[in-house]
Amino acid sequence: MFHCSLSRSLEKIGDWWTLLIVRDLYLGVNRFDDLVTNLGISRNLLASRLVHLTEAGIVERSCYQQRPQRYEYRLTAAGNELIPVLMALTAWGDRWVTAEDGAPLLFEHVSCESVFTPQVTCSVCTQPVDVDNVTPRLGPGATAGPGTWLLGNRVQHRAEGATPVPRST
Amino acid sequence: MFHCSLSRSLEKIGDWWTLLIVRDLYLGVNRFDDLVTNLGISRNLLASRLVHLTEAGIVERSCYQQRPQRYEYRLTAAGNELIPVLMALTAWGDRWVTAEDGAPLLFEHVSCESVFTPQVTCSVCTQPVDVDNVTPRLGPGATAGPGTWLLGNRVQHRAEGATPVPRST
Repeated sequence: MFHCSLSRSLEKIGDWWTLLIVRDLYLGVNRFDDLVTNLGISRNLLASRLVHLTEAGIVERSCYQQRPQRYEYRLTAAGNELIPVLMALTAWGDRWVTAEDGAPLLFEHVSCESVFTPQVTCSVCTQPVDVDNVTPRLGPGATAGPGTWLLGNRVQHRAEGATPVPRST
Repeated sequence: MFHCSLSRSLEKIGDWWTLLIVRDLYLGVNRFDDLVTNLGISRNLLASRLVHLTEAGIVERSCYQQRPQRYEYRLTAAGNELIPVLMALTAWGDRWVTAEDGAPLLFEHVSCESVFTPQVTCSVCTQPVDVDNVTPRLGPGATAGPGTWLLGNRVQHRAEGATPVPRST
């Protein structure tokens, strides 16, 4: 296990298929056969990914019919909180990958009634963040290990080059 | 190629290794041998991932020494814009995966001088977005194809259940 929340997230999530399954569950494709049809994924592969996502606490199975018993899949709270991250990744794709016919999917914010671009911002001042205005620093859980052998040193070095700032939450 | 900016992003990015390489380049691990050491990845695998990332326009090779010629790897503009998305994914991991010793990495916002939690917000009203306050809608580039056979129908259905809102940007 890599000692970084990004790699831990990736490990937890599984692979790209699982992200597309999470997308589908969010968009209302919740049944096994529909997921097979929509994704063009083999039944075996889908079954193993759903087990992984369930064990990871991202997806849960819910019974929607008693006789015969039938199940559908839903996102858990952790799964739901992945969706804004996928929205941000989708916006990146709209900007850097998608063809000139425009965005396949738009997001409307219910509270402000606008079509918006998902953006990643600072929880304190609400301004968008980018590589130039963020300094990464070692946190309390920082350890060296596979995947992070050199990171402590590099992050330290990078932070020392930056203006020291007081910590707050 | 799936007809959705999320799956197009995933295809462009490659696999989990490439995200860890992007993380490392951002944190200052920019040379081939250092990437091998930090990630514990085989040289062949790293080389193929760097070729993929370079061809995808996420990474570029830059000569830092003439005799003998030596190269390091840097993020392009598209690569830099992936970083906030990875920050948001890291925050998800801090919340749902990382052990009780706390976050391995903290982010400080240079402009407001605070340690912050990256969050995904609405570009119009700047409020955080979540599954409950966003309605996905079909955009101009929406098409049906492998990976999206059922999505048009589901998204339409979902949007019709929601309060209709005027479109703006």
